[in-house]
Amino acid sequence: MTTTVVDPTSVEPTPLELAHKQFRQELLDAGLLFDTGVAGVYGRAAGFEAIVDGLDGLLTSMRPTNARVLRFPPVFARQTFEATEYISSFPHLAGTVQTFTGDTADHRELLAARAEGRDWDGWFDPAQTVLVPAACHPVYPLYAGTVNNPGAVVDVHGYCFRHEPSVDPARMQSFRMREFVRIGDPDVTEQHRDEWIARAQGALTDLRLPFETAGANDPFFGRVGRLLAVNQRDDGLKVELVVRLYGDLDDGTAVVSGNCHREHFGEAFAITTADGAVAHSACVGFGLERLALGLLRTHGLDFARWPEAVRKRLSL
Amino acid sequence: MTTTVVDPTSVEPTPLELAHKQFRQELLDAGLLFDTGVAGVYGRAAGFEAIVDGLDGLLTSMRPTNARVLRFPPVFARQTFEATEYISSFPHLAGTVQTFTGDTADHRELLAARAEGRDWDGWFDPAQTVLVPAACHPVYPLYAGTVNNPGAVVDVHGYCFRHEPSVDPARMQSFRMREFVRIGDPDVTEQHRDEWIARAQGALTDLRLPFETAGANDPFFGRVGRLLAVNQRDDGLKVELVVRLYGDLDDGTAVVSGNCHREHFGEAFAITTADGAVAHSACVGFGLERLALGLLRTHGLDFARWPEAVRKRLSL
Repeated sequence: MTTTVVDPTSVEPTPLELAHKQFRQELLDAGLLFDTGVAGVYGRAAGFEAIVDGLDGLLTSMRPTNARVLRFPPVFARQTFEATEYISSFPHLAGTVQTFTGDTADHRELLAARAEGRDWDGWFDPAQTVLVPAACHPVYPLYAGTVNNPGAVVDVHGYCFRHEPSVDPARMQSFRMREFVRIGDPDVTEQHRDEWIARAQGALTDLRLPFETAGANDPFFGRVGRLLAVNQRDDGLKVELVVRLYGDLDDGTAVVSGNCHREHFGEAFAITTADGAVAHSACVGFGLERLALGLLRTHGLDFARWPEAVRKRLSL
Repeated sequence: MTTTVVDPTSVEPTPLELAHKQFRQELLDAGLLFDTGVAGVYGRAAGFEAIVDGLDGLLTSMRPTNARVLRFPPVFARQTFEATEYISSFPHLAGTVQTFTGDTADHRELLAARAEGRDWDGWFDPAQTVLVPAACHPVYPLYAGTVNNPGAVVDVHGYCFRHEPSVDPARMQSFRMREFVRIGDPDVTEQHRDEWIARAQGALTDLRLPFETAGANDPFFGRVGRLLAVNQRDDGLKVELVVRLYGDLDDGTAVVSGNCHREHFGEAFAITTADGAVAHSACVGFGLERLALGLLRTHGLDFARWPEAVRKRLSL
């Protein structure tokens, strides 16, 4: 009997896959990013970081004076992760942490297994921490209780983890997100989302970064997820600013995302408004690596040759 | 039969434990750090971040012009983690990452288990990533091959994870480390370590932060680890700048650490010098949160009232 073996490397890549690969290679060749051996996990060079720092500074200059600044490390409490119900909607993107709490004998067994080329993860146990999937998630438990009018405004920045290995450099597994969050009644949170989307549109225009504004949905998992996505879109809860990194080959890459969560986090973390109702929340998140990549794609890989007005905005 | 139940909360805390608890509470009361429900994982307020940013700026001003700037996310390749042999020496500090790659049916099972209050981690598998335990670890694979004289100088900054839950705010599970790394022959690497320790001594003196310089060892795990620690100390490979956050109650807290790794990383990542020998490496790491805590402990919790010369150094 003869069997036909399909060589997966011989499968013709799509034009989009080729475009991903080419852009990635250009960034590596320019020494802006470094391959670490894992898809979507990159080292960053000084030139790339200068752009990210510039974007961060620009966003700081746009921050209202009543915003509270909060920063969190890349891991947060498993208890908080559980309360967000992220595991129900986005299990495929989550990253949990495991640690070793065994003794010398356990360690000896672990090393023996490892020496034989066997998995040693069995000697590790779930930790009290999980990787942060969105910069704003660690914020909400701090607001358990009552938020007074006109609600809380938070400026948060942090590393996010999403397990979606890809050749596309704009789809990193570990990236930085700057977010402006509002917790309060339905009106102020919706207004916050709309105001910050308008501010973001202004900033992208100033940076001469062509974009489209589009209703969107989160990448909910599975069949139930498809329904949730349709509802989210129908209710106009998510708005994205999208940059076409790859022309017409796809629908573009979201660089800014504005989200009305309704009562989701208010319920999860027992946050109420002054009138005793469950608080609403909204956030507008800026993907710093994606914005940097959008600028590099639009203005070229050498920022010294970018339009002067753009460099000035970013203190480059 | 009567059994005597010992209430663990009634055990008299040691003076050091009380000091940890008190300092932690002062930082929370001052609104500089926020409790996240996990020991050693904190939210940071604007005032705390300003100090960290000031320290970061000071270190940038001390950077030699030939240093290459590299930044890495908080997760790195498991393959790199394996090559460092961290799992052999520090299993108790490591944090591995797990992700979900199942289908809708698997997810349904996971959610059913979770709804019954059972662990759902069994549906997650080891990921290709591990939490970065020391800022410099992702650097070495980039230097596989030959480094020319006088070797490579790298400025690296990143979030580190170490699983050592503690009430002591200076023992965080997730914290930032700025490191200056050198890869080259034994002489230049040792010289790098000594020069940077001297620079760090100067910086701490300028910041009016009293410190002691002491030979030290890494917290190697287990019985074999105790031998490795003794050897490391005897060979003078590790030097720390130590700040007494808790007076005479302990031996102080390391805020800067200078380490000669000898051939450890050179061998692990096949790095050679121009003459074909296995490259040596050394690093000097600055614990940014620990330095900030040392300054807060020394000069008071309100940096607006710190000595003017110190504020100026940190652009505060």
